[in-house]
Parts: sequence; structure tokens; C-alpha cells
Amino acid sequence: MGVSPATSISINRDRFLADLHALRAFGAVRAGVVRTAYSEADMASRRWLEGKFVSAGLEATIDGVGNVIARSRNPGPAVLIGSHSDTQPEGGWLDGAYGVICGLEVARALAEDRSTQSLAVDVAAWQDEEGTYLDCLGSGSFVGAMALADIASAANSSGETVRQALVRLGLWGRPLARAEKGRQLAYLEAHIEQGPVLEQRAKRIGVVTSIFGIRNYRVKLRGQQNHAGTTPMTLRRDAGMGAIHLSYALVDALRTVAGPDTVYTIGAMHFEPGASSIIPGHAEFLVQVRDAQEAALDRMNDAIEAVVDRFSKSSPLLVELARSQSSHLATPMDEQLQSELCNASEARARGQWMALPSGAGHDAQIISKVIPSAMLFVPSVGGVSHSFEEDTSEDDLVLGCEVLAQAAASILLSKRK
Amino acid sequence: MGVSPATSISINRDRFLADLHALRAFGAVRAGVVRTAYSEADMASRRWLEGKFVSAGLEATIDGVGNVIARSRNPGPAVLIGSHSDTQPEGGWLDGAYGVICGLEVARALAEDRSTQSLAVDVAAWQDEEGTYLDCLGSGSFVGAMALADIASAANSSGETVRQALVRLGLWGRPLARAEKGRQLAYLEAHIEQGPVLEQRAKRIGVVTSIFGIRNYRVKLRGQQNHAGTTPMTLRRDAGMGAIHLSYALVDALRTVAGPDTVYTIGAMHFEPGASSIIPGHAEFLVQVRDAQEAALDRMNDAIEAVVDRFSKSSPLLVELARSQSSHLATPMDEQLQSELCNASEARARGQWMALPSGAGHDAQIISKVIPSAMLFVPSVGGVSHSFEEDTSEDDLVLGCEVLAQAAASILLSKRK
Repeated sequence: MGVSPATSISINRDRFLADLHALRAFGAVRAGVVRTAYSEADMASRRWLEGKFVSAGLEATIDGVGNVIARSRNPGPAVLIGSHSDTQPEGGWLDGAYGVICGLEVARALAEDRSTQSLAVDVAAWQDEEGTYLDCLGSGSFVGAMALADIASAANSSGETVRQALVRLGLWGRPLARAEKGRQLAYLEAHIEQGPVLEQRAKRIGVVTSIFGIRNYRVKLRGQQNHAGTTPMTLRRDAGMGAIHLSYALVDALRTVAGPDTVYTIGAMHFEPGASSIIPGHAEFLVQVRDAQEAALDRMNDAIEAVVDRFSKSSPLLVELARSQSSHLATPMDEQLQSELCNASEARARGQWMALPSGAGHDAQIISKVIPSAMLFVPSVGGVSHSFEEDTSEDDLVLGCEVLAQAAASILLSKRK
Repeated sequence: MGVSPATSISINRDRFLADLHALRAFGAVRAGVVRTAYSEADMASRRWLEGKFVSAGLEATIDGVGNVIARSRNPGPAVLIGSHSDTQPEGGWLDGAYGVICGLEVARALAEDRSTQSLAVDVAAWQDEEGTYLDCLGSGSFVGAMALADIASAANSSGETVRQALVRLGLWGRPLARAEKGRQLAYLEAHIEQGPVLEQRAKRIGVVTSIFGIRNYRVKLRGQQNHAGTTPMTLRRDAGMGAIHLSYALVDALRTVAGPDTVYTIGAMHFEPGASSIIPGHAEFLVQVRDAQEAALDRMNDAIEAVVDRFSKSSPLLVELARSQSSHLATPMDEQLQSELCNASEARARGQWMALPSGAGHDAQIISKVIPSAMLFVPSVGGVSHSFEEDTSEDDLVLGCEVLAQAAASILLSKRK
């Protein structure tokens, strides 16, 4: 269990909120933000962040894939705090930006408190968590899970590769920041919940128990494209009709085997050629399942394979089930760090916090491969995220940062003893 | 019932096939044809057709919407024979072109036979049956069902209006050909079947009983776009899931009320925004039903409305059912003319013909509003049409033209008696 901190850490509320709004200005569009990885707005925001970290007394650099990495001048052990500052193509103003500014403020707050000024807080603003080029490429590079050659060849929807983007921005060839063995004993990430659970339960802080694993599937059906007027029903091989029947059967099976936390989604469905008078010769849909437990995902996987197999055997269509490579493993958060966050939450917001799994993927999932990691959520108004309307109350934003500062101090102080 | 013809009419097989292949050359792409309405290839083919009609002794003109209309110099009553010479964006070489060259050859064949040389065969090559700008606009103009102002404002997918196309081709302002009261007592159209029925039943000629009516529907579902990881199943308003359930229920209901000839198709399905990690906020799909009887279409319509209504009442989604204006009425062919075609088929191809409805729409559906109309089909190899692979055996092509010539002669000779 966590150690009670010697003191109660104070953050500078006005400075913290001002910096959050300053970052929001990079790529601002109405109430939202368009600041996709490697865009001009993204690069400008990273230069601004680098300056803020330097002003906070940290050594800061933008590394060879665009991560902004700030290192305390104090000796370790250190707590690494961060998130990503890139956004979706139509992003909200908080998302990962909240966790980055939390890191900046916690570093400043601990440096300003006599009881914690010798502690080491490192801060990171990861690149491209949103996958404009490649999901979590910044944190992936930091932990050595992705080689630069693989990252460099990933491309955005316009066909620009990461290498081309890095050359364009003058980053190509810069050193890559890497996790420092023995220095960073914990990674903490604050983030908006991006879901409705905290709001529905009237809680202000969520301590993440586990990050959902994701399994993505693509189902393709091939039949015979034909004239919708002249082809009798009995002579059809209708890929669209097949997709309707198969997706219905899949949803039915998934509902049966789903656990209490499991979510499953058919996010896209597409018939070709897609005209009212043409029997579709091809149909395709995407299935995604998420759960905090790999065992639950295995059960869902088995159900999907069984339904597709059964359908395929009784259908005149060619049916193909492909599991996508972008899947993530379910990732439990570090137990000790969860306890630290729970203690800090209880100290700062008695009875107003809860433990919950994260349905969304996060950089913490990647960082946890090499550094014990934990996450803290603040509520999303209406559960909305990845949207210009995304928001969180100022009091909740500030509370989240306070809890994070308290936990970081406690973690580091406990190592001193 | 039909009157047996005084003589058996002979067509010129080689000339007929040579002209079919000559028309094929306009817009030829591999084995297929790209000759959409008002394209350069289409216009060149219409000038060529005009010349062929003149060479056949007819008065010919290209009218103010691009119809090629050829008029026998003999006094009426006349039989009007034709089809459309425009194609789909990836069209087959026969489709409507077959019926146009049949008209040309029947006019020549009757003019060359002493027993029929005084009969009047008018021929038409209608414009844009395929709806590149507007479905059946040529035949629609001819019968007065469409005003020039409405036709002129229709646009193709590139945004060019018919008026702009007509100006570009030098046709704007030309007189519009119209059906002549008292002259054209019958309209006959030969066409490829575009379906598999004749081939499957080993028949060489089809006499069309009725042209299917078409009802088109668009179903829209609006829910709440959300994160596919962070939104629990119980808090979702998933438009994609709704579309799967509703389309499944619709197909189930349609199967129950469908008649033996009814066909129904869900030709397009689309989720928005269409990504694996986003719960669709919007989904949309197209439903089409076709039958030879309006009463059957009414039953299907009632079933669709009932299922959508029931679903809508039990769903948190906003559901909208829109019936599209492009629907056609089921159109029975003229009984007397059907008999003439049956008699001619039996005379030329004993036991090798059958009566069947047309699942596809045709100009005859439009012309029948003012002139008694009938249609004859020849088999489509593999049931394929609207494709470069579309084909029909030469013997079947020739037989169809012979039957048409025989029927035309019989119809006109019976009026002389």
C-alpha cells in the first residue's frame, strides 16, 4: 500500500489552466482542436512545450520522432508523467493535452514545495498516440517496442510517410529518447475518461485498473454482382444479404458470451458497388471487441470464429475473416501505483472517486512494457470525446492534477525512506 | 389473337450482324462498350445511325434531346421498333444496341420483301435509357411524359446538365420528335434478357408479359456517435447495430410476403463515420423491391412500413423511411401484341420460347403510356449484363430479329385486311 505523503502538495490552479488554454490555441477550431501528428500546429505546440519545460527548470528536447521529453535536473529515481499532445482530425481540447500539462504542473509544483523540491519528475509529450501515421508511435519508440525503420515507413491517409514528415519538420536524424533504466520507476498518465461512467456515477476521479485489450476483425464476403431486377432470388449470390445475416448472427453470439465490461462494435459496413439496382458482389464489415481481460477476449474470438465458420459452410459466398494486426493486449495497471492513486484520491476527494477499467487505449499501455504504470481519469462531460464538444469542468481538471501531484510525491518520497 | 402472316419474312443475317458490330465499335473498350449518353462516342454513333436509316430509305433525324428517329416514307399505320443506343459507364455491346439494329434490319427486311414493301416501319434509338443524366429521358420526351425544361436541368455525376450537353453537341434548340397520333399503332422492342432465366430454361426467345414495377426506399438511422472503447453497451445508441437489426428484420418480413416473381435487394449499406473504434452515429441503407404486379408491390410496401414502424417504436434511434421518386409502375405489355410475338416465336422457334416478366426497366415502359407496346428477349450468356462480358450467341441474336420481323409484318398486314 502507498505511503502517506509528508505534506499536501499544492498546484497553481491559474497557471495550470492558463497553460492548458495556451496549448489549446495551437490548431484551435471553434471549441475543438485540429492538431494531428506532424502537422504545423503540432510542431509549433511541441516547440512551445519544449520552452515551457525549460522555463520549469527541466532539460527538454524534441527527439527524432517528435516526442517532447523533459528531464528533471535532480538525480533519480524519477516519476515520468505525461500523455500525448497530438489530436484526432477533429479533436477535443483536452484528450492527451490534459495529461501533458498535468505533467508540467506537477513538475513545477513539486519543485516549488520545499518538501519535494529535490524529487525528480520527468515529463513526456508523446507523438501520434491517435495513429494519424501509426498508433502510439512516440511511446512505442521510447520503450523500444517499435524500430525507427518501421515507424519511418508508416504513412498517413495522404500517403506521406513518417520519414517524409520528419524531414519536412527538420527532425529526421535527431537522437531518439529512450526509457532510462533505473531512473524512471513509475509512469503516471492523467487523461479524460472519454466515456460516460464517471459522470453517470457522479464521481470526479477514476483510478484505472486495467486498459482494455482490443481485437479487430475484418469480415469480407464475395458473391456475384448482378442486376437487381433480372436475377431471381433463388439464383443470387448476394454478398450484401450475406453480410446482413452474418453480422446479425455475430452480434447475437457476442451478446451471449460478453462479460460485464465487454464492449463490441461493428463500426463500418460497406457493400460494393453500392447501388439500389445492383446485387452487391462484395461486402465487408469491421468487428471490434474490447475487454480488460485477455481470457474474455479469447472467448469472444472463439465465438466470432465459430459463427463465421458455420455461416461459411452453409453459404454460397466466399467468406474471409481477418484479424487485424492493430490489436492491443489487455494491460493491467501496476497494483502498487493504483494504491498510490487511490490513496491520493481519497485524501483529496473522499468518496468522489472510483476504480474502473479503461475502454480506450493509451500510451500507458505501451510504457507499461518497461516501466510500472498507472492512470487517472477525470470525467468527460456527456461522455463525449474525439469531438469539438469534448469538455471537463475546471474543478475536475484541477482536482485530477492535484491527485496526480500528491501521488507522484508519495511515490518518490516512499523511495527515499 | 394474331393473324398468321402471308409470308415468312427473311432478314439479312450477315448485314444485321455486321451493323451490330459496327455500332459496337463506337466506344469499344475490350469486349465491352463505354458509350454513355451525350458522350462523343454516343454522338458519333447517332450520326452513324442516322446515315444507316437514310441508306435504308427512311427519313431520319436526330431530335432536340438526341433521339434518332427514322420514319418510313410509306403511309401509316406504322409499327415503331427501337430501343436505346446509350450504355452504362461500363456497358455491354448488346443491351439496347441490339434492339436498335433489330429495328433497322426489320425496316430493311420488310422493304425488300414484295409482300411487305408497302408497310411502314419507323425506328427509334432512344437517348439515355441508362440514366447517365435522367432515366429514359429520350422516350420520356417522345411520349410527352417529361418536359424539356425538366430534362434540360438534369445533370450527370460530373455536374454537366442535359442543356449543357445539348449545347456542346449542337443539338440544343432542335425540334423534339413526338409520337404521331394515328400513325404508330404498336411499339416493339427487342432487348437482351439481362438475366439468367432463358438460359437456365434452355429457351431462345422470351415474350415479355409485364415490366416489373420498382419501389425504392432509403432507410436512415441516427444515434449517438461515440468511442467504441469507453461507451458501455447499455449506454449506446448505435446506429450501425440498429441498421443490422432493422435490415435483418426487413429481409425476414419481405421473404414472407414475396410472390414467386418478387425480387428484393439491399444494394447499399453505409455506416458513419465508418471506423473500427467509433460507434456509428449514422447508418443508412437502400431497399429495392420489384414485381410485375402493383398489388404485390403494395404488400411489400406495407411490410416495409410495418417493420420500420415497429422497430422505430422500440428503438432509441431516430429512424426515417423515405420512398424514392425514381420508382416505376409495374407495366403489363399489350395482350394483342404479346400474342403476335408468341405466334411469331412459335412459327420460328417452336417450343424454344417462353413468356416471362421483365425484371429490368425498359423504354417500352415509357412508350406504353401512349402506344400499345410489347417486348421480346434473347438470352444473356450467364445472365450477365451491364458488364464488358455481356454476350448472346449469334444464332439467338438473329432468331430474335427474325421473330420481330415476322411479328411486325403480321401486325401491319392484319390492319390492311
